Amino acid sequence: MAAPMGEQRGSGRLDALLVSHLPNVRYLCGFTGSNGLLLLTASNATLFTDGRYREQAAQEVTAIGAARVVIPARGDLWKAAAARLRPSARVGIEGNHVTLAQRQRFLQHWAGSAARLRNASGGIEAQRAVKDPTEVAAIRRAVELASSVFLPTVAQLRPGMPETEAAGRLEFALRQAGGEGLSFDTIVAAGPRSALVHGSPSHAPLPQRGFVVMDYGVILGGYVSDMTRTVHAGRPDARARAVYATVLEAQAAAVAAVRPGAACAAVDRAARKIITKAGWGRQFPHSTGHGVGLEIHEAPRIAATASDTLVAGQVITIEPGVYIPGWGGVRIEDVVLVTAHGAEVLTPSTKEMLSF
Amino acid sequence: MAAPMGEQRGSGRLDALLVSHLPNVRYLCGFTGSNGLLLLTASNATLFTDGRYREQAAQEVTAIGAARVVIPARGDLWKAAAARLRPSARVGIEGNHVTLAQRQRFLQHWAGSAARLRNASGGIEAQRAVKDPTEVAAIRRAVELASSVFLPTVAQLRPGMPETEAAGRLEFALRQAGGEGLSFDTIVAAGPRSALVHGSPSHAPLPQRGFVVMDYGVILGGYVSDMTRTVHAGRPDARARAVYATVLEAQAAAVAAVRPGAACAAVDRAARKIITKAGWGRQFPHSTGHGVGLEIHEAPRIAATASDTLVAGQVITIEPGVYIPGWGGVRIEDVVLVTAHGAEVLTPSTKEMLSF
Repeated sequence: MAAPMGEQRGSGRLDALLVSHLPNVRYLCGFTGSNGLLLLTASNATLFTDGRYREQAAQEVTAIGAARVVIPARGDLWKAAAARLRPSARVGIEGNHVTLAQRQRFLQHWAGSAARLRNASGGIEAQRAVKDPTEVAAIRRAVELASSVFLPTVAQLRPGMPETEAAGRLEFALRQAGGEGLSFDTIVAAGPRSALVHGSPSHAPLPQRGFVVMDYGVILGGYVSDMTRTVHAGRPDARARAVYATVLEAQAAAVAAVRPGAACAAVDRAARKIITKAGWGRQFPHSTGHGVGLEIHEAPRIAATASDTLVAGQVITIEPGVYIPGWGGVRIEDVVLVTAHGAEVLTPSTKEMLSF
Repeated sequence: MAAPMGEQRGSGRLDALLVSHLPNVRYLCGFTGSNGLLLLTASNATLFTDGRYREQAAQEVTAIGAARVVIPARGDLWKAAAARLRPSARVGIEGNHVTLAQRQRFLQHWAGSAARLRNASGGIEAQRAVKDPTEVAAIRRAVELASSVFLPTVAQLRPGMPETEAAGRLEFALRQAGGEGLSFDTIVAAGPRSALVHGSPSHAPLPQRGFVVMDYGVILGGYVSDMTRTVHAGRPDARARAVYATVLEAQAAAVAAVRPGAACAAVDRAARKIITKAGWGRQFPHSTGHGVGLEIHEAPRIAATASDTLVAGQVITIEPGVYIPGWGGVRIEDVVLVTAHGAEVLTPSTKEMLSF
């Protein structure tokens, strides 16, 4: 941990780029394993991984036809990459993802100096934020698969069923429909627990009366879906109807603000304005959305503090919510494609308030 | 990315410790959210998180009675922590987990200099590696829950069923039994795909004849299970029986080597020797095991290159395997507790070769 740190941003051309963030590795060379480091130079690409992935890497990376696969001794990927780089090379690393220990390991085995390291974070992420038609099609399939299990699962919900079982029914339906995995830990939060923005399913039973927030996603062809619907056990009272109607209106307003050139902050503002006007501004404690793709959270952020503008081909979530501690919460979330002239909501599921 | 880096290891007392690795945060203060930074000083503890976790943090951290919860503006946890630290403080950070960007963000807002940062990685992990009886009980419950669904799931397997559906049935059974989540992405890899050490479930059907590797885990009370069983579709031929018997013998040999004071490398060697003698040494491309607890991979590593010795109270996996490209693979994995005088296998499921 003792070496000087010299990474400067964007100054001059790189001779090599070390890609360690796994979704970026996958994006660039097709490798899907849990341990990999991709070295790119002008003339070639080398993927370092460990022995668990020898056969998988050969299959996946050969399919792309790009990278040579190297399995270094003792699984020391950073050392192996260091040994392949000239000391005079200007080497880009991903400062948003590389740990201090990884950087140190690299410098221990590289003949070059830390002053030649450059922070190359964000470049691949920016490229990934704009999806090509193949990627949009993959996201659409994942979103449609996830949507297809929503109503059948709601039909199985009963007061008294543990949140964990409700989550399990949702997840099993996703698997039966062909889901390759979950894009994040399923959220099923019922009754007062629905006021927890990220409530992990507990053994708490679904209530006789109250909200149930269901936020879930599936992976298909490597791309993720993300959707939230909030349903109600028993007859909703006036407050429940008012909160739901407000969130629904805010969600529609934000979707209506999505178009190429729109400021991400303006999309956030469109939702927040309606919730604030209804008196629940302080009960909407998160941003309005985020990009989705190979990762569940990627660029752009749809937040009050965001400085980006939307670009056609970006795929984002729109998911305002209101959470009242001790009482309950509502969130409604779609995946939205930024099109050439506006927006297309990819999530086909109804947003009417459903009761069970 | 331009500041000098001065972290030295273990030199002198720390005035403050910044804990950013989330399992460590949870271990120390009870917070389970996906974004948090814990600042520990001699006199107090402060948890920084974002608005999504306001209510959850209040519930969880109050339960422990330790940390104050702070929700900084714009969710800038590192900036908020920096503002609370004297420039003269010696500040420990977790070099194995802190990214270059996080460190830079902290230094931008801290009046102190990088030379006062210390790498404090591994200390909390070492503490976590030895479980207290409450933690052992939690792991035991998770392991028993996972084991309880194994035979009922095998009874549902049929040739032709997609791997994804087999995974779904397993996961649904875990949920119905009360699982709070999966400790990692379920592996179901069938036929030739069973030679992929970490084969994600695909749409490939279970074969008429061949191995099916099932490697899965559940979270209960925050602690994880991890088990692998390999079952066979149709009648196993002589080679399948030989590979299975070898892996089973290697697994038993490694378990027999587990006791306090045993070198982790010796436990690995016990398994590897048997597989090598049978002629498949090169087809066992991973380490024999790893610790489990709040995380699915934690200390100690049970590997040829490990230098640690086992300590009573550690909980580890023992999971040798043999993988033959184009044909198939076998892995058998239990969770094992290091006891005062030896080892206790926590996983009750049979290790006989089952066919379906």
